[in-house]
Amino acid sequence: MAVRNAFYAQSGGVTSVINASACGLIEAARSRPDRMGKVFAGRNGIIGALQEDLIDTSLESDAAIAALRHTPSGAFGSCRYKLKDLETHKAQYERLIEVFRAHDIGYFFYNGGGDSADTCLKVSQLAEKMGYPIQAIHIPKTVDNDLPITDCCPGFGSVAKYIATSVREASFDVASMSKTSTKLFVIEVMGRHAGWIAAAGGLASSEDCDLPILILFPEVPFEEEKFLAKVDETIKRHGYCSVVVSEGVKDGAGKFLSDQGLKDAFGHAQLGGVAPVIANLCREKLGYKYHWAVADYLQRAARHIASRTDVEQAYAVGRAALEFALAGKNSVMPAIIRKADDPYTWEIGSAALSEVANVEKMMPADFISEDGFGITEKCRRYLLPLIGGEDYPPYRNGLPDYVKLANVAVPRKLSGDFQI
Amino acid sequence: MAVRNAFYAQSGGVTSVINASACGLIEAARSRPDRMGKVFAGRNGIIGALQEDLIDTSLESDAAIAALRHTPSGAFGSCRYKLKDLETHKAQYERLIEVFRAHDIGYFFYNGGGDSADTCLKVSQLAEKMGYPIQAIHIPKTVDNDLPITDCCPGFGSVAKYIATSVREASFDVASMSKTSTKLFVIEVMGRHAGWIAAAGGLASSEDCDLPILILFPEVPFEEEKFLAKVDETIKRHGYCSVVVSEGVKDGAGKFLSDQGLKDAFGHAQLGGVAPVIANLCREKLGYKYHWAVADYLQRAARHIASRTDVEQAYAVGRAALEFALAGKNSVMPAIIRKADDPYTWEIGSAALSEVANVEKMMPADFISEDGFGITEKCRRYLLPLIGGEDYPPYRNGLPDYVKLANVAVPRKLSGDFQI
Repeated sequence: MAVRNAFYAQSGGVTSVINASACGLIEAARSRPDRMGKVFAGRNGIIGALQEDLIDTSLESDAAIAALRHTPSGAFGSCRYKLKDLETHKAQYERLIEVFRAHDIGYFFYNGGGDSADTCLKVSQLAEKMGYPIQAIHIPKTVDNDLPITDCCPGFGSVAKYIATSVREASFDVASMSKTSTKLFVIEVMGRHAGWIAAAGGLASSEDCDLPILILFPEVPFEEEKFLAKVDETIKRHGYCSVVVSEGVKDGAGKFLSDQGLKDAFGHAQLGGVAPVIANLCREKLGYKYHWAVADYLQRAARHIASRTDVEQAYAVGRAALEFALAGKNSVMPAIIRKADDPYTWEIGSAALSEVANVEKMMPADFISEDGFGITEKCRRYLLPLIGGEDYPPYRNGLPDYVKLANVAVPRKLSGDFQI
Repeated sequence: MAVRNAFYAQSGGVTSVINASACGLIEAARSRPDRMGKVFAGRNGIIGALQEDLIDTSLESDAAIAALRHTPSGAFGSCRYKLKDLETHKAQYERLIEVFRAHDIGYFFYNGGGDSADTCLKVSQLAEKMGYPIQAIHIPKTVDNDLPITDCCPGFGSVAKYIATSVREASFDVASMSKTSTKLFVIEVMGRHAGWIAAAGGLASSEDCDLPILILFPEVPFEEEKFLAKVDETIKRHGYCSVVVSEGVKDGAGKFLSDQGLKDAFGHAQLGGVAPVIANLCREKLGYKYHWAVADYLQRAARHIASRTDVEQAYAVGRAALEFALAGKNSVMPAIIRKADDPYTWEIGSAALSEVANVEKMMPADFISEDGFGITEKCRRYLLPLIGGEDYPPYRNGLPDYVKLANVAVPRKLSGDFQI
């Protein structure tokens, strides 16, 4: 069998462990020089393929590739760029094939979320439709945890651990101050469509560490009176309260709360941020002194407090993708299959891309408590293993020692540019 | 010599290592039962003394006290409550003495910042003015790093490590996304008066990990045109840019930028938050897509990424306070004396409270780079040792295992309440 090269690209919002998947894939490829040629990475994702801007990962040392396992972000650059459908935007696909052919690329590894799974599926269909043999494997990644079939998504567990830890720490802080000062702490977390990350905030409180935490899920329409009553009752009972609010929380009419909120002094700009809106509402209506935080990128980049489980799974799906390719598979995604909750065990299975693309996995209704402000025991059982274990990066001079790759370009073989 | 009891209170905003000072003090006291009686902690700080709401720390196990070393926040509760001066508010001081006398308290340990040092000094003067023998020792604590004489303040090093790490991580993230999406990341950090914490953001970039970071210090009046030009130039050169903005940054007229910023949709409320103001300015004027974060309490509660140096120093000043008391000292504060930068060595010295109280240590002008947007090598030499080393808390079920003390009240001996 001829040894062909592989293309790998990172897609969409990056995570603290997407590079661990790259590490798994590249290390697995390096271990099989008899079967696998070079791994070329797209500079800034799929755009790198369209523009024939490929990175030669074979020029990176083994140590640099190994360091990807503990380095957050997308080491080769990512992009938000969705390929349109095959029929109406044929030029894009023809260009991909032109580039793949020029560099003898027989394997397409796409590391991303739902949109990327769809792109990956389309690329896998190129073989038939355009007569170019290529195997396309999708590697799951998304902090949103919304891919179907796989039990969880690499990237999510580490965000969950960061949020659960941060909410616990901030709650301890507020508790200390609540007698004379701050009584309410509001933290805004990611998750525009599904409340998985917000739910993780609920883990901050546990049987051995009870903390008063309320969650505002995107799945639960915001009811002002009910929420204010709950905050008031919680603070009256515990002396303080922490609120975890999803950026995607909406009112009864389906409008994002963040969209009705902040304007600058001139009244013309919408600045985003639902945490200050919620905090201010509580002060206006209940009179409580508050603090608020917006974690934003910090949560998905926080490799310093990654979940060991998450890192291991991210690495494993990267390795599995390579093995799937060598096994001749096409149009598939390595999926994480949960075998048991406690002690947690899992294995890698295989999901057909046709069943993954464009399907969004929402939080089950029975993961949210009856009053809508907390998580159920079932949710806790699901989430807890995903934040299990620590996997600290090495430090140098007090700071995490993250790797920056050389990212040397593969010499171009085609003439002409491709406009994206 | 008669064995008398001690009073310990936490004051002002808490930190991730103030409990390490409590741990040092209490462990030292337990090791000298021949000289030191019980340590009574004020519930919610000095208010606990005024209201005779004392916590009997002798009822906590050795393991629980040891766990304070890795637990953030104020385990006994803190407060924002400044004692007024001795002459006009004599009743407060008389009440303190009444409570101290009732519980045979001969030592007053006050763990806080500049205001607390002032209170501690006043209490130390009670002995002479009101005929009650008491030794008052101040234990330094403040994330603001603004106490004089001591080279640094316990609490600061861990915030600095958190901010430097977070800025590095978020910068890696933005770099990945910058080709098609976010090009600017803005993070707001604490420090209303001095830019120590903002300066720590500059550590994210180092010789071995160069990152484009701009800092907005409270010490440098904000000039919109100059700032926008710098952001534009930085993004044009590096493709992206991270901005660390102190909550205390002011315009040329001395007005806080955060005060001119956010209003809610009804225009009546000031919501705080300078990060969105800065981010929005850059979008309006330069057109860059941004993300912003406000770390707020997360930064000072982040025990999970505490600086080992900071933890050791916090513990050491707690122990030293007890030793100072046993040595008969009064009106003093253990201070951290730097012996060398690299390798970093330090020891505990003694500072007179009269020289500490009401003196704010600002950032030296030569710590800020000439253009006003960065730190100098001198600043870096000062800061780097303070974030040195890691000191991870134990984990349980994926979360830091922080201790909650029983905090059993000492039976009251006085009748009547004291209104604060």
